[in-house]
Amino acid sequence: MKTQVAIIGAGPSGLLLGQLLHKAGIDNVIVERQTGDYVLGRIRAGILEQITVDLLREAGVSEGVDAEGTVHHSIELVYKNIRRSIDVSGLTDGKVVTAYGQTEMTRDLMAAREKAGLTTIYSASGVSIHDFDGTRPSVRFEVEGQAKALQCDFIAGCDGFHGVCRASVPEGSITEYEKVYPFGWLGVLADVPPVSPHAIVYANSERGFALCSMRSMTRSRYYVQCPIDDKVEDWSDERFWNELRLRLDPDLASRIITGPSIEKSIAPLRSFVAEPMRFGRLFLAGDAAHIVPPTGAKGLNLAASDVKYLSSALIEHCIEKSDAGIDNYSQRALARVWRAERFSWWLTTLLHRFPGTGGFDQKVQEAELEYLVNSQAASRSLAENYVGLPLDFAE
Amino acid sequence: MKTQVAIIGAGPSGLLLGQLLHKAGIDNVIVERQTGDYVLGRIRAGILEQITVDLLREAGVSEGVDAEGTVHHSIELVYKNIRRSIDVSGLTDGKVVTAYGQTEMTRDLMAAREKAGLTTIYSASGVSIHDFDGTRPSVRFEVEGQAKALQCDFIAGCDGFHGVCRASVPEGSITEYEKVYPFGWLGVLADVPPVSPHAIVYANSERGFALCSMRSMTRSRYYVQCPIDDKVEDWSDERFWNELRLRLDPDLASRIITGPSIEKSIAPLRSFVAEPMRFGRLFLAGDAAHIVPPTGAKGLNLAASDVKYLSSALIEHCIEKSDAGIDNYSQRALARVWRAERFSWWLTTLLHRFPGTGGFDQKVQEAELEYLVNSQAASRSLAENYVGLPLDFAE
Repeated sequence: MKTQVAIIGAGPSGLLLGQLLHKAGIDNVIVERQTGDYVLGRIRAGILEQITVDLLREAGVSEGVDAEGTVHHSIELVYKNIRRSIDVSGLTDGKVVTAYGQTEMTRDLMAAREKAGLTTIYSASGVSIHDFDGTRPSVRFEVEGQAKALQCDFIAGCDGFHGVCRASVPEGSITEYEKVYPFGWLGVLADVPPVSPHAIVYANSERGFALCSMRSMTRSRYYVQCPIDDKVEDWSDERFWNELRLRLDPDLASRIITGPSIEKSIAPLRSFVAEPMRFGRLFLAGDAAHIVPPTGAKGLNLAASDVKYLSSALIEHCIEKSDAGIDNYSQRALARVWRAERFSWWLTTLLHRFPGTGGFDQKVQEAELEYLVNSQAASRSLAENYVGLPLDFAE
Repeated sequence: MKTQVAIIGAGPSGLLLGQLLHKAGIDNVIVERQTGDYVLGRIRAGILEQITVDLLREAGVSEGVDAEGTVHHSIELVYKNIRRSIDVSGLTDGKVVTAYGQTEMTRDLMAAREKAGLTTIYSASGVSIHDFDGTRPSVRFEVEGQAKALQCDFIAGCDGFHGVCRASVPEGSITEYEKVYPFGWLGVLADVPPVSPHAIVYANSERGFALCSMRSMTRSRYYVQCPIDDKVEDWSDERFWNELRLRLDPDLASRIITGPSIEKSIAPLRSFVAEPMRFGRLFLAGDAAHIVPPTGAKGLNLAASDVKYLSSALIEHCIEKSDAGIDNYSQRALARVWRAERFSWWLTTLLHRFPGTGGFDQKVQEAELEYLVNSQAASRSLAENYVGLPLDFAE
């Protein structure tokens, strides 16, 4: 088997990259360890920056988000049990974010890929990558017990934090930065109308962080910060809803519509960056290279901007015969990655209770939130990061 | 002895308050534990917000700062050994800060007080305050072995962090918030021209924080972050100058003019707030109620804004016979205090190396600095805090 770009991983990064390359006439094959249904079953992010929506449009896969996505013009911040709104759109010349589930986006991309007749190899076991430091990389794997080899010009590692691509890089040529947060997020998905359908609610409370989000007008996604060693079994639906209410302002708390959870899980929070993001003919994109805590909703969007930089670079190489883009990919992507890491770390630090910290830290958080909602400069800084800094920021 | 307002402490807060009250026709006496020379000998802050300069003008004591102060229109930030400027003045509709030593400001205030013939009792030992929860407070102390009592309507506690006023408040009626930073500042004063006479230089370095400041065109004030248990004797002048250079960008490092230190000391960094700031007829102002780490140059300015709120409140009471100001003093002052605490904590956290933190933290600091200098919104947020938020911010 041969292709120009072998893409490892059929998550949103890999699928979006495949679509953009295909649009430019560049042949690609996706190799995925799991089944398509498994990929779709992962409950993940749901807030898209305008840049990400634009990229879906560029890839010709925006029908779903255009029809079903819910535009958010603002952010709601709760602190000291009061609620304040940040007019994100007004502060960023009309930019918005769009609530649209990662599951739905992935399904749209899979459908488009299938429609275009592009090759995706699911349930590939024992995937390994080879010779990306030379000029003839290849991917090996097994499907239904049969060994396969895929020759390619480039490998795109879109295979997530635990994927094979980053793990295949020689140890000395990669530097990793990491921060693990001392708490988790208990998340509940429920088929009830969201309490705040037009803006995410971020709550700072002495009891810990809470977040009200949504997947659609009939499906809500709520979170409360919890000790990292809590078990899901400790949290009945009733306990969850009660705790969520206690962390909100009275108005929102009284308006929450509860219902049985259809998914309930505890997720750890982590910041992680691997540098560089290019190794010869291997490029990492998305979670394969970096993880953000979910607070800023940056994970999926960062994957999308990696893909934008990478697809441009590969198109430049294949069509314009210039290596400038691929030579510059790692630096360009990492500059944006660190900005999003900074923002996600900051918002996480601002909103959560950290074990072992005292009254001073809580008061400083409240002072920062009070400043944030009252200073136009500070509001704008939050807003411009929330909608996504321009792709050419500071270039 | 009788007066309307007994002021404890002849530092800049007490002296400025005395002057403003006197201008409004309100009688006041200052009681100071130390000699005037001792007060003047303390080497302290040197950056005045416009609000503080305006207050000196209102008090009729601005001749010195007008003649000798050096206006700063910008801030210099060093990170990854490069230097970037923030146009503070351009971002805040022309606001500036002024470099003028606290020692000089205190001397000007002492001279004005003496000229006005106002009573300051220096070298008062065993100062104690009484009955401020009733209507007839008093201050007792000894001068040259003689016991004295000062009857008054109000007591202003301007006697610093270790003063008697906060310590005299019943334990249950005060809440204290504190954060101690795990490092110190090694400061050197030298009679050499400042390397950056028109802007403070703040340096983030893997070796630790450094700061280039000034007292005048011939007197420089430099700092480097050091372990809190270092001894001044460990730091020869040569070692200090070498370390300072290593934390700056090459251009600045090459232009530092060195000379013998005329003062060298290691100071701890602390954040501290006591709430409330009023107890009956006792009002706390300045360091008696709160401490900020020196990074944001907010300590003296916060004392000045306390004094502004307090003098307005006392004038309102004495002249307009309204208690609205004194009833509101604590809340009003504390709102500003927490904003400045937040800013000082943030700038400290952004610029210093924290023991036990890793590469991620350093990279996030660098990302924040890079974002800060490239985003107008973030630059403006820094700038508006640096020059001082308006006295009626968010009111």
